Amino acid sequence: MTEKLSDTARKSLIDPLVANGWTVDAEADRIAKTYEFADFTEAFAFMTRAALWAEKWNHHPDWSNSYNRVTISLTTHDVGGLSSLDAKLARKMDQIRED
Amino acid sequence: MTEKLSDTARKSLIDPLVANGWTVDAEADRIAKTYEFADFTEAFAFMTRAALWAEKWNHHPDWSNSYNRVTISLTTHDVGGLSSLDAKLARKMDQIRED
Repeated sequence: MTEKLSDTARKSLIDPLVANGWTVDAEADRIAKTYEFADFTEAFAFMTRAALWAEKWNHHPDWSNSYNRVTISLTTHDVGGLSSLDAKLARKMDQIRED
Repeated sequence: MTEKLSDTARKSLIDPLVANGWTVDAEADRIAKTYEFADFTEAFAFMTRAALWAEKWNHHPDWSNSYNRVTISLTTHDVGGLSSLDAKLARKMDQIRED
């Protein structure tokens, strides 16, 4: 079952994401990142790949796109904050970005 | 050439969009609309179809998605406000939405 991350889990799951450019909004208990791509086709290709994983895991980002930029914000509404699903999706997005 | 809409053109191009649920941000000279879908797959399917037209016309939306919602904001950066391209893309999005 999905639950809110413990302090220990935050250290192991969120700290590496922060080291990789994700920022933590402590008040909203969300993590966020903006990716910049060469152009719109690259940005939307990223979104399409990420969308398939989001749907597969039934965990969906709040995200926006403006031409070559995609801004992601992740949280788990069901638990009112960050869960391991957010870390998992964030890692997947970083991986897709690097492909 | 793309140019900022004249007052007459606004009447013929933007008024019908407003009647169809688009709102005008006069200060930013943008139009905006939020679509609600059954779920994420429907929302992202809409975005994918709209993305293809945006790229084809080389006119891209500022948009965000949260699960089953897609919020669109359109303006033409090159002219510093609304152009006929915004009306064209808005009409296309409404059409895709209705399909």
